[in-house]
Order: sequence, then structure tokens, then C-alpha cells
Amino acid sequence: MIYLKKKNDANMTSTHSKGSSSEHRGKFKGIPDPFPVQKLKRVDRPTTLIHDDEIKRVSELDGGFQRAGKGEYGNFIQKEYRRFMEKYPLSDALLDMSKGLSRVVDGPVRKNKAPLPDDPKLISRHIKETAYFLRADMVGICELPSYAVFTHSRWDGEPIELNHKYAIGILIDQDWKTSRAFTGSDWISNSMSFISYSTSGFIACILANYIRKLGYPARAHHAMNYQLLVPPILLWAGLGEMSRIGDIVINPFLGSRFKAAIVTTDLPLAIDKPIDFGLQDFCTKCKQCAKHCPVQALSHGDKIMHNGYEKWPVNVERCAKNRVGNQHGSGCGTCLKVCPWNKPNTKFHNFISWTMRNIPFARRFAARGDELLGYHKPKSKWKWWYDFEVVDEEFKEPTDKQKKS
Amino acid sequence: MIYLKKKNDANMTSTHSKGSSSEHRGKFKGIPDPFPVQKLKRVDRPTTLIHDDEIKRVSELDGGFQRAGKGEYGNFIQKEYRRFMEKYPLSDALLDMSKGLSRVVDGPVRKNKAPLPDDPKLISRHIKETAYFLRADMVGICELPSYAVFTHSRWDGEPIELNHKYAIGILIDQDWKTSRAFTGSDWISNSMSFISYSTSGFIACILANYIRKLGYPARAHHAMNYQLLVPPILLWAGLGEMSRIGDIVINPFLGSRFKAAIVTTDLPLAIDKPIDFGLQDFCTKCKQCAKHCPVQALSHGDKIMHNGYEKWPVNVERCAKNRVGNQHGSGCGTCLKVCPWNKPNTKFHNFISWTMRNIPFARRFAARGDELLGYHKPKSKWKWWYDFEVVDEEFKEPTDKQKKS
Repeated sequence: MIYLKKKNDANMTSTHSKGSSSEHRGKFKGIPDPFPVQKLKRVDRPTTLIHDDEIKRVSELDGGFQRAGKGEYGNFIQKEYRRFMEKYPLSDALLDMSKGLSRVVDGPVRKNKAPLPDDPKLISRHIKETAYFLRADMVGICELPSYAVFTHSRWDGEPIELNHKYAIGILIDQDWKTSRAFTGSDWISNSMSFISYSTSGFIACILANYIRKLGYPARAHHAMNYQLLVPPILLWAGLGEMSRIGDIVINPFLGSRFKAAIVTTDLPLAIDKPIDFGLQDFCTKCKQCAKHCPVQALSHGDKIMHNGYEKWPVNVERCAKNRVGNQHGSGCGTCLKVCPWNKPNTKFHNFISWTMRNIPFARRFAARGDELLGYHKPKSKWKWWYDFEVVDEEFKEPTDKQKKS
Repeated sequence: MIYLKKKNDANMTSTHSKGSSSEHRGKFKGIPDPFPVQKLKRVDRPTTLIHDDEIKRVSELDGGFQRAGKGEYGNFIQKEYRRFMEKYPLSDALLDMSKGLSRVVDGPVRKNKAPLPDDPKLISRHIKETAYFLRADMVGICELPSYAVFTHSRWDGEPIELNHKYAIGILIDQDWKTSRAFTGSDWISNSMSFISYSTSGFIACILANYIRKLGYPARAHHAMNYQLLVPPILLWAGLGEMSRIGDIVINPFLGSRFKAAIVTTDLPLAIDKPIDFGLQDFCTKCKQCAKHCPVQALSHGDKIMHNGYEKWPVNVERCAKNRVGNQHGSGCGTCLKVCPWNKPNTKFHNFISWTMRNIPFARRFAARGDELLGYHKPKSKWKWWYDFEVVDEEFKEPTDKQKKS
């Protein structure tokens, strides 16, 4: 195997003498990289405090949606939870696919190990390149923090044991055009979440299976079958910072317009570092999400400490009830829509984004500029979907409130 | 429902007065469209003759790979066919996913129909926009030619009955960077096919399910569960022209660097027209695929008529035996690699592509220019995968022949 290792090592380092695992397809492809994560400023720890020793693992059963489903937010919300995705045909079809993918997150591990290079940096590079080949938008790697693992699964209520050493985060964009066209809380909102959930899940399931076929344990985690809390992994893997939206991580190229799937594994990997693109300062100044939240679930104030994490507080009950109970749409993504980081990959917006990342003074004008340019409003000429809902298997028109909007 | 139809009609036509079903996300997104199919010259019939009445439907059981599997090309090829995808871990993982998707191609149709607009052009626009939202690279629509339906399925040998009126073609790129880096017949070749097969299948299964949830029959067809021959659908749906590679359709933006999945349906749709980008003249002059084919399976001569289709002949047995029996890689895509249409989406290449499409004189220099610039050779510094194979569950080194290459 010596020849093979040497050849691959040489091959994969010759043009990358610095050998960082953060290196990215953009350097090779000869075409512009839409998401140049390798250009971001890296720091040793996430930009929000994490008291690793104080964090208590949480149960998936205690999430807002699970509470809605259990009836803790009242009968009406419980009833609406049962048709939350199904009431709109596209989110319904996407949910079916995600459910199908819940059955292929894990499987047998090949007994023999592949002759991979000894250097974990090279293996990380290979795994990232593989994820990009599988059409991931962004990829980052960290050690799996033990506190990110759920205590119990919402599917069977059983205790979870997950001891993999590394976590690979895979981001998928929710689609710029759709985010520009929608109101924030109309009929396409849940479909936007689930195109990213199902696609990142699809990639994670293939990648985990590939790693198992290389002889190492690996499990995919996606919306219909998580064993862990995603945000801490995104922070440590350099894919975003904690934001005013509360438990939501914002990425400098997508805002919160993404969903993530995770692969956990014992394959030896080099890890990425957290990023700092000035978001803590930015979110202190901007407040667009808090201003536009239809149920005032987000804070206009300062960060707090909660279960060992420094974060802006969010009223989970209000947010979940609004999304599940929305009678004029399927879900809600208003905070996603109005965030100034929710922009397309154009030269103009990339320049503005660079300014926001690097010039603190400029951040004061972001919220104002966005409103002046109308980014918080729906660009209805870009709308491509239809407004209707399925009630008891029959299609219903939008309500009066929607007609007027 | 009148209000709803009116609103959507108005909404979806106001900015698109010409209302063609060929219109494309690129017009809306505010970012450059990598594959502007709406800019292509449209013609009434495919650029190669099709004698619709003379074509006899074929059985999927008679394909080259099926013959290999049945032992018609000898014991060695039959044995190799059984490990064709499994011998490389990444193509193996991709095959698993495609097999999983073979179970979700069809399902129950909602009894009530969604209140869609009366104009099939608007429905086609919506379906295309949905496919792009689901991350398709290109989409085209045609009537389903009855001669494209297989007589028998390779899975169960049963006769196929498929009477849907329309076919929606969904293309997925096999990845420019990987196609630039590989030799044409090394270990990544089958994985390139199957990232496109599995991803287009994933999209087709969701889209077909969505259409069924709108109240119309729809079935997805992808590599692990086809009921039809793909090339005639690509021709009629304006996604490519027949090429010297034989039964392979070439697309002006991807060359043959794609695979397709199809959705057939009775949802009323407006159809696209075939395209003419000068490929018949181009392939007459270029001959790069025939020159570089490692087993001389492609013709240097003229087109022939075969079963009612005008096409360049291909030696299916040589091609299948070479791909299945390849001892120095997994599959073969040399013809894909060396085709001058296999290029990335850059300003330079888009300009050259425009020249090739529009200036017949320039086509004489395409093959020569490509060789001078080394596009037929592997760009090994872009290589991101490892060379090994699995034999009886053990990893083996590449052979001497590969070491030298």
C-alpha cells in the first residue's frame, strides 16, 4: 500500500502546500466559488461563549414542534401539527422523501479499512471534495461535542448513545429566488425548509454509507432522523455564528437560508476552526428579525446565558405556535427573509457582504439599506408557486387576508 | 376557485408577456444562469431523422449491460458485471441510494385536482420552476413518444404499459472538475455517472410525487427503474442532439457530461421544441470521441438509419465489455471527457461555445484546439479521489499499468 499512499499524498499536496483542511473546491475548479469559506477569518473558539462543562444534554422530545405535537400548546395547535407539512402538496412530497431517507442513515461497516493516507488533513480534504462532488453547498468538520448529542430520540423515546469522534456539517441553500419572492410566511415556507432538509439528508446518507464502505463507522443525521443538536456543530465546524434569531446559526454567504445535515464518524479527520465574520456586532445593531417577527418571538435586547450557551433569547412557544398554526401559509421564515445576510451570489452583494464582514462602522447602515431597497418585501414577480391548501383531501382557496396582501 | 386562477395567471404572466414554456429561472434570479436553454435555436423536429412509424419498441432486457449480466459476452464479463459498481466504494454507495429510490417512483394519485390555471404554458412554467427549486440543472418537456416506452422491464421481465401523455426530462451535471481531472476510464468514472443518476432520480421522484398530490398521475423513471428509453425524450424536449458517441445525446452546455431522469404524467403541459446548435455538422468534423475511444467502439464514418432513427453507429458489445471488464478503473467515460462540448461555465468557454453553435467554419478547429490545450488529458492536480478497488471485501492496489499512467 506504500505506493498508493505516496502517490495520493503527493498528488493531493503538490498544489496545496499549506495543506489546510479548509481548502475548498473553488481553488481548483477554474470557476468562481459561490461560497468561499476558505476566505473567512478563523478563530479558536466560537464567537459566543460556550461553557462546555455546564451544558446539559437535551431530549429531542422537548423541542417546540414536539411540544406542539404532544398537545402542550393546546388542541388547535396539536391538530394543526398533524397536517403541518401535508397541507401543501410540495412540502408533503418533500416530507415523504425525507421520511424515506430516515431508513438509510446507518448500516454495516466494512471489516477491512481502505488504504487512506496517514495525514488526517488529506482525508478531510478528500471527504470535503466528495461532499462537493455530491453537490453540497458548504462543508465543515469539527470534533463531535458530547453535549450536542440528544439524550432521547423523538421517534422511539429511547436513550441515545453516540460516541463518534467527528462531525461533518453539510449545508444546502433554501433558494435565493424563492426567498426573495415569498412574503416570509406564505405557502412555500415549509417547502423551502424541506428542499434543504431532504437534499442535505440525501447527501449525508450517501457520504455516511461511503465512509462505512471505506471501513469506518459513520451515521447520517437529518431532519427526519437526528441524534444530535445541529447548531453547536455548525459553530465548531466554522459554518456560522449564533444570531439574534435565537437558536439559529447564520452563515455569511446564506444568512439563515439553509438547512444542515450531519455525518458523525470515527474516520480520522482534521478539523476546521470556528469563523468570526463580525456577526455578534452586526446582530447587536441590526434587529431586522426582531422587528419583523410576526409574533414578537425574538428579542430586541441583549444576549443571555442559557444551559451553558451565550445566545439571544427566543420565545420557542410563540415561534412554534405561529409556524404550526399559520392559517395563511405553511410554516414561517420571516426571520430568514428579512435578514440582511440573505443575499444572492452577485458581485455587488459579495462586495457589500465583504464590507459587512470587515468594516464594523458599515454595519449600522445594513438594516436601513435593506429596507430602503425593499428586501424585506416579497418580490411578487418572481413568485412561481401557487397558493392553496389541502383540507381533508380537498383543495381550498386562500383566505380573505391573503387576497388582500 | 376563480379568484385563485386569476391571481396566479396574472402573477405569472405579468412579467412574461411572451409566455413561452421555455422560459427559465435565469430570467428571474438576478444571477447568471449557467445553462440558458431559452437562448438556443428551436426547430420543429429533432435534427436527426426519426421515422416515428417505423420504430419498433425495444426491451430493456436487450441493452448492452443486461447482455453482459446474462453472460452473452462470456463468463469473465458476467462475473465482472456483478461487481461493476460495488468494486469502488463511492459508486457502491451511490448505487445503494439509486436502488432505494427505485421503490418510490410511483404511488397513489389524489382524487381531487388542484385548482391550476387553464393555460398549459403556465403549468409547464410552474413545473419547470419547481424542478429548478429542487436543484435540477436543466429541464425540458415533450409529448411522450409511444416508441420510447420499453416493451419489457429488466427488473421483472414483465411487459410494460405506460400511456402518460407527457415526459419531463431532468438533467444533472456529472461535475466539470472531476471530468477534467479523470483519465476517462479510471476509478471515478462510474461514480460520475451515478451522482447524476441518483440526484436526477431523487428530483424526479419528488416531482412525480408532487404532481400526484396535485391530483394527476405521474411516474418517475431513473437509472434503477426506467420504463422508457431516455434519448428520444431528450431530443424532443430540446435538451440535446444525437451525436457521434452513438446512442448518446449531447447538450450544448454540458456535452455528454450529464445523466437524466424522466417524469411521465397526464398533467396538461405545454411542450418545448427540439434544439439545433449545429451538432450534426460539428460531429461530422470533430471525431475526437472516435479517435480516443479505447476499444474503437465508435465510428469515424457517416450516420446510418437504425430502427427508424438516424444515428452514428456504435459497437454496443465492445463498449459494454470495455466498461464492465475495465481492470484499471470502474466504467469508462472517455467519450464524455474528450468531447469539446465538455466545458465549464466560464465567460471564455461560453464565448467559444457560442462560436461553435453559430459559426460552422469555426467548428473545424474545435478538435485541434482542444488537443492543443490538453483537454483530452487528465489534469491530475485536480484529482480528489483515491485509486483502489475492493476484491472479495479486501482493498487492492492499482495494477502496474495504472502506476505508469
